[in-house]
Amino acid sequence: MSKPSFDRPIILGIVGDSAAGKTTLSRGIAEILGPQRCTLICTDDYHRYDRRERAANGVSALDPAGNYVDILEQHLHLLRQGQPILKPIYNHDQGTLDRPEYIEPKEFVVAEGLLGYATRAMRDCYDVKIYLDPEEELRVRWKVHRDTSKRGYTAEQVLESLKKREYDSPTFIRPQRLFADIVIRFQRPPGANSSAGAPETDHRLDVAHILRPTLPHPNFSRLIEAVGDGSVGFELTRDEGKPVDVLEIRGSISDRRAERVEEYLWEHIPEASHLRDDLGRYDGAAGRAVSHPLALTQLLVAFHMVKAAQGVHAV
Amino acid sequence: MSKPSFDRPIILGIVGDSAAGKTTLSRGIAEILGPQRCTLICTDDYHRYDRRERAANGVSALDPAGNYVDILEQHLHLLRQGQPILKPIYNHDQGTLDRPEYIEPKEFVVAEGLLGYATRAMRDCYDVKIYLDPEEELRVRWKVHRDTSKRGYTAEQVLESLKKREYDSPTFIRPQRLFADIVIRFQRPPGANSSAGAPETDHRLDVAHILRPTLPHPNFSRLIEAVGDGSVGFELTRDEGKPVDVLEIRGSISDRRAERVEEYLWEHIPEASHLRDDLGRYDGAAGRAVSHPLALTQLLVAFHMVKAAQGVHAV
Repeated sequence: MSKPSFDRPIILGIVGDSAAGKTTLSRGIAEILGPQRCTLICTDDYHRYDRRERAANGVSALDPAGNYVDILEQHLHLLRQGQPILKPIYNHDQGTLDRPEYIEPKEFVVAEGLLGYATRAMRDCYDVKIYLDPEEELRVRWKVHRDTSKRGYTAEQVLESLKKREYDSPTFIRPQRLFADIVIRFQRPPGANSSAGAPETDHRLDVAHILRPTLPHPNFSRLIEAVGDGSVGFELTRDEGKPVDVLEIRGSISDRRAERVEEYLWEHIPEASHLRDDLGRYDGAAGRAVSHPLALTQLLVAFHMVKAAQGVHAV
Repeated sequence: MSKPSFDRPIILGIVGDSAAGKTTLSRGIAEILGPQRCTLICTDDYHRYDRRERAANGVSALDPAGNYVDILEQHLHLLRQGQPILKPIYNHDQGTLDRPEYIEPKEFVVAEGLLGYATRAMRDCYDVKIYLDPEEELRVRWKVHRDTSKRGYTAEQVLESLKKREYDSPTFIRPQRLFADIVIRFQRPPGANSSAGAPETDHRLDVAHILRPTLPHPNFSRLIEAVGDGSVGFELTRDEGKPVDVLEIRGSISDRRAERVEEYLWEHIPEASHLRDDLGRYDGAAGRAVSHPLALTQLLVAFHMVKAAQGVHAV
């Protein structure tokens, strides 16, 4: 095996509740960075108990006590050092703990899951930390849609499982929101009536990025001027009592203006132009029903990954 | 979880070919050191392929290429640092790779298996390295006995499997002998005819310890004088072309003289007297058909573990 051409991998965390959109975001970012350069792992594989055992002992899969949190810390730390891991596997279909999987970190590692920021030792491993916090009604709809169409549950079973998590979510998942560099919130446009929000109109959703001053964000004030029509907003406010900027991108943004945002972002990392040619291109303009807010969100996160890589990989 | 009262675990390696006596020695040493203070792991659990896959790809389970050698290195290193591991499991009955097992290192870790000294990174993790090298005829007899009585094979199948390993053993296992601090060789007494060596006479076997000058061995010359009757021998010679001492203990040693050897060893670690009271006692004198060479071998290895612990744990 040849020595990798980078000093250590750049680690992206994507945390959020069930069906918050973690996998969609992970895959989109890997597509931009180049799948051949990305290792995706799921931190939900570190369950201490299989489904049968949980039924017997009553420990929730969302409770850190029901997970090998220390091993997850260790594995994130090893990946950050560029070392391989033998990652456990939780089989979501069968509810069993299966044969572990050998994982070697590539240039970028995307670690998504429910409990990625549960401890300080974990949080210290990431270069970029994202928390997905969609409007709750959307999340419920996404969960019902996914679990009935892909996981073989009935809508009633999904709603029942959400009910069961009414304690776990605010207790174990939600507090991690505080530790993200960027909180990403997909939401329906103001004034949309509550029946709006069927899957076929997801591309119309607005997105808000709550930007904590823990990353070198681009100067969005100038971007707003460049876009000009209010389809991108930028505002200083407080979140959880602390100063943040909020970047808003409307689902109604035009193709042309979305491209202008993309250009603006790349101008901020001219050192990465060689990478850019190589990267999956933002194809917001190409398709019907493409969500500009989603595509630009993916690009913004990828932007921070490339920025982080420049600090580390350009030695 | 309370912080352990020791700085880092002391790691013992026990390597040798199949049925060389690794498990017997590991358990005996754990018994002396106190099972509550010992973590036993088997390095044969790191197979990359299950039995079905090996049948298809032809990679031997004894070939380092068929094992996650880098993960084994990593896990030994983590254990040495006192960190837990999520150890893979190879199910010898089914030939499958199963759900991994959470292991926390106690004060002493005994790692036994076929490939424990395969790489420098592994070898650097041990405080004491043992290689078991019994007389080959004995090992074949032990293997047939174990695999037919405990693993459900016929004698023909066992001999067939030994034949298959005629390449693997000298290629992958045997070269590790060179890296041991102590090579332990059980053998039949000189002049015993070749039909001797049924299981019921194993307690009569002699043992030779080939002592490389890589550990602080006690001064055995004075022990020989103390024992006096030639049932313990000590000789300077060469092994694999390099200087070694060879300690020999005859199967015919008397109970009284065996006890004298035990006393002599403990006199060399007076600092450990508080440990000694706590340790499992050498019960060579108690039973019928007890092997003094085996019991004293266990004690000698335990002696080195306690010595190593004194350097590390007495802070």
